Amino acid sequence: MGLSQLVLVSPHSFPDPVATARAAGADDILANARVVGSLAEALEGTVFAAALTARRRELAVPMKWARDAAGDIVSRTSFGDVALVFGNETVGLSNEDVSLCHMPVKIPVSAEYSSLNLGAAVQVLCYELRMAALDPGEPPNLESELATFEQVEGFFSHLDRAITASGFFHPSNSKRLWPRLRRLFGRIQLEKDEINILRGMLTAFEKK
Amino acid sequence: MGLSQLVLVSPHSFPDPVATARAAGADDILANARVVGSLAEALEGTVFAAALTARRRELAVPMKWARDAAGDIVSRTSFGDVALVFGNETVGLSNEDVSLCHMPVKIPVSAEYSSLNLGAAVQVLCYELRMAALDPGEPPNLESELATFEQVEGFFSHLDRAITASGFFHPSNSKRLWPRLRRLFGRIQLEKDEINILRGMLTAFEKK
Repeated sequence: MGLSQLVLVSPHSFPDPVATARAAGADDILANARVVGSLAEALEGTVFAAALTARRRELAVPMKWARDAAGDIVSRTSFGDVALVFGNETVGLSNEDVSLCHMPVKIPVSAEYSSLNLGAAVQVLCYELRMAALDPGEPPNLESELATFEQVEGFFSHLDRAITASGFFHPSNSKRLWPRLRRLFGRIQLEKDEINILRGMLTAFEKK
Repeated sequence: MGLSQLVLVSPHSFPDPVATARAAGADDILANARVVGSLAEALEGTVFAAALTARRRELAVPMKWARDAAGDIVSRTSFGDVALVFGNETVGLSNEDVSLCHMPVKIPVSAEYSSLNLGAAVQVLCYELRMAALDPGEPPNLESELATFEQVEGFFSHLDRAITASGFFHPSNSKRLWPRLRRLFGRIQLEKDEINILRGMLTAFEKK
């Protein structure tokens, strides 16, 4: 998601072969992780910290949903390093941990399954930060040339001739048929190459 | 995230103790998974299928980002069951698999690390569906009563008396000090209980 600094507070086992395997293509981030003895040490030098928490707590600062928090968190990065603080898989963060942070953040979950796996929670929050920080632009579709209005109309004229000649298109059903054909092909938003394919097919039918 | 039906296509191992352990509180969904032999069989009875893909492909239908796709996918649920199709961890979906689906979907990722772990990708797409389907309402903050304007002003008067009596508040610095104090306490948006605590402190200082 574009984040590059990982700090581990008193990890159970580090480096650990299971963690390295799961890090897949991002094992450099794990290998460069800074290991510290306390959360306070981890937060040294940061200007803002958001704490992910699943539990309802009596807190000085109101909780925010991940989506609403993301913009605030990103805006703080112009002042310096910002920390996302996650508890461990089993017990999460202590109240003392949360009190060292500026913003408690929660991910909306189903009432029946109230807590996410740690990895899932990290992924969602980092994804929201990426979405808040970067406009992803257009999805990476291969470019294909859309047919122009004239090309589509040329195809419709060709189709008209072909189905009239074939006997499929009787003047009696023309009123019902054309709107349905236009609706069908209009939804597709035909490409130039596709028009050529369709007209090739029509030409083949006409010759037969 | 509120999804309840899981279909596994030719799983390597099922049921599997590692999978059950990772499912944590949602192991009922895993236990009730339907196992089928092909993607086509998995899609039987569905009215719409979205395929998550990391790769750029030559596709009939344009790719959508997860956030933009989520609303479309949710809107299809009014017509029947909708499928989210994910490939396996190693090779993802084949072009044939994607062609059985209506909408290719992609999650924006950093250019250096172009593919997410399967679990991370599933989490993000399901989270986007939850966000599109349900307004999560307000985060679950414990309710506390905010102080009224009069209560805050009462505190400021008390503070004024206390710091004047203490000698801290000289008429010479009053013009600079009050705006800063108002800005400080204004940002906090004090609660009723907090006003009582602060005024209790002031009363204690005054007695001393």
